Amino acid sequence: MKYFEDVAVGERTAVGRHTFTADEIKAFATRFDPQPFHVDEAAAERSHFGGLAASGWHTAVVWMRMMVAERRRQAEAARSRGEPVAAIGPALGLRELKWLRPVYVDDTITYESEVIETRESGSRPNLGLLTVRSTGVNQRGELVISFISTTFVERRPVSK
Amino acid sequence: MKYFEDVAVGERTAVGRHTFTADEIKAFATRFDPQPFHVDEAAAERSHFGGLAASGWHTAVVWMRMMVAERRRQAEAARSRGEPVAAIGPALGLRELKWLRPVYVDDTITYESEVIETRESGSRPNLGLLTVRSTGVNQRGELVISFISTTFVERRPVSK
Repeated sequence: MKYFEDVAVGERTAVGRHTFTADEIKAFATRFDPQPFHVDEAAAERSHFGGLAASGWHTAVVWMRMMVAERRRQAEAARSRGEPVAAIGPALGLRELKWLRPVYVDDTITYESEVIETRESGSRPNLGLLTVRSTGVNQRGELVISFISTTFVERRPVSK
Repeated sequence: MKYFEDVAVGERTAVGRHTFTADEIKAFATRFDPQPFHVDEAAAERSHFGGLAASGWHTAVVWMRMMVAERRRQAEAARSRGEPVAAIGPALGLRELKWLRPVYVDDTITYESEVIETRESGSRPNLGLLTVRSTGVNQRGELVISFISTTFVERRPVSK
């Protein structure tokens, strides 16, 4: 991660792309969200979804996993250039999380995040706060998930 | 689930109680949120958390799992009384999800949900929308998570 001071509003991150298989949809939902339309094809066909659909929580945590991996890639690239790497996390929370359309079996979701606000932390002078809007779009270009999250990121150390 | 018409603002559900073990915290985070402070005790001690802490996503999906189980218990109880059971889900999204304090190893979180708004669906006459505020409180009585979610629930069928 770059230091807080080096992050600009409008910066975008291509977080990654993921295809949701039936097995994976059912495995996640069995563990964390065992509603019939997430775990059983026949029940899903009879539901408003009309077919097996991923838990919304599943579509969100896949973003998280890929975002952590992307930050790690960026950190390794920075270290290989001899640049410092700022600490990031934790998140304070989310707002406006919207599950806009179902994610069906074999849908491929492309996730992107964009910095929409940066501000200094009142309580922690060594940290800044990044607010990011993240989206997931399916292979038909339809928005399926959108949310805004705010995360602490380390500020550039003051030179002595 | 009761029909939309039978749900009143202010109704509370005791969703359940869960203790987060170190193994479970690391297993979830390894899969979905592999930041150092969620997967590695030594790294967590050096972090702002000062010790291994659960992923915020983990503390949220445990609520989901217990809420589904609680709804199932309520549905079975209703069926055993010969009462109809309304369909529920999916959720449209969340707002104001706040991770207010870390959840550390062996913390026990008690989840509760309260209906804060009910309204008819403009687009789907057979469904209503329930808005619920959910909270998780640790064994010291401190709020660790809070969020507001909105979910479709079936309306009472019109008698013919």
